[in-house]
Amino acid sequence: MEDAVILLSGGMDSGVLLAWAKERYREIHALTFNYGSKHAGRETAMACRLAQHYGVTFFLAELPFVRELFRSSLLAGGPDVPDGPYQTDGISSTVVPFRNGIMLSVAVGYAETLGATRVLIASHTGDHPIYPDCTPDFTEAMSRAAFYGTFSGVRVEAPFSGYDKRRIAQTGRSLGFDFTMTWSCYRGGDLHCGTCPTCLERKEALGYNEGLDPTRYLA
Amino acid sequence: MEDAVILLSGGMDSGVLLAWAKERYREIHALTFNYGSKHAGRETAMACRLAQHYGVTFFLAELPFVRELFRSSLLAGGPDVPDGPYQTDGISSTVVPFRNGIMLSVAVGYAETLGATRVLIASHTGDHPIYPDCTPDFTEAMSRAAFYGTFSGVRVEAPFSGYDKRRIAQTGRSLGFDFTMTWSCYRGGDLHCGTCPTCLERKEALGYNEGLDPTRYLA
Repeated sequence: MEDAVILLSGGMDSGVLLAWAKERYREIHALTFNYGSKHAGRETAMACRLAQHYGVTFFLAELPFVRELFRSSLLAGGPDVPDGPYQTDGISSTVVPFRNGIMLSVAVGYAETLGATRVLIASHTGDHPIYPDCTPDFTEAMSRAAFYGTFSGVRVEAPFSGYDKRRIAQTGRSLGFDFTMTWSCYRGGDLHCGTCPTCLERKEALGYNEGLDPTRYLA
Repeated sequence: MEDAVILLSGGMDSGVLLAWAKERYREIHALTFNYGSKHAGRETAMACRLAQHYGVTFFLAELPFVRELFRSSLLAGGPDVPDGPYQTDGISSTVVPFRNGIMLSVAVGYAETLGATRVLIASHTGDHPIYPDCTPDFTEAMSRAAFYGTFSGVRVEAPFSGYDKRRIAQTGRSLGFDFTMTWSCYRGGDLHCGTCPTCLERKEALGYNEGLDPTRYLA
């Protein structure tokens, strides 16, 4: 069995990926980033709790330059996060440019230092049309860069690349995963707002309309 | 003509690349990193001076997590930098794992924000055998990841990929480049030490034995 570094945001996708990976890797090291997003406090607290719950190491890396270099409605000080599902116009304002490239690169260096051979990311089919750095082509190219760019030949894997978010939710349930230990809302209030793109996506995936979603929403 | 982001360390390779790029790109944006290396102060000051000299924007990005996550003799607090040329055993202790992957990823996100379509890095043939994240295979894979992972299809280029360091020095001379505006020494004292791997490499490239090297060395 190999060791792995996992990108753990505190959201439901990477949370389920952690539960999934626990059965497949020897040691797991969770890496969480604070890039100054509006929901950073909520998300990173959840990530730390998840890491504790699953008994894996946890490291929070600060990316102070992101807020200065990049413009995105996801970032504190940026424009407001829009309402509505992901398909609406203007949603690309929530993109932090090449965010997964940056986080994966740090994770690859961390893996090389630790002697871990795998870096895991929870990209899924729902991300592909919106975020170019969630596509299989991107992940495959990053994996090649990681392989060539490290002595130990680290590889990047996206085990949920062929899953939609509903299937991730089902996978989580089959692993006994507690979804209240995760945070999705881009607005980062006390409760999930229930109307931003990622809340709508979460409701759909967790079966809110069927009464299966344990999340408390504002609306 | 396109705009470009350049990784500018303050060393001679990226300095010459900046002079080279000035004639080929419209606007150039220099990106410099402080990852806690022993020679950070020296190098970043030179990078800032070079950017001013060539009239390009300058941004210094802090990577505070590198010192905590990675082990390398290049980092303050790490083991001593060894003497001797790059080929000696133990020189891989100067590797900061996947450093170019991390810096290029930030540069790609920055380029996407600026509307620049190229990211330039000064990798050359002398780097290839020592640092896996300087090889053409690595750069090509990163370029694919950048292309797939951005809306604007950013590309990574290493124009000096086929050059050795002597040819970079010659290129610099033909462009009227002032090599005293650059810093190489890993030890980061008041003068170049003259004995660490990168000083020996610098001496050879700039023609120290032929009396062509304008650098002042301790030894």
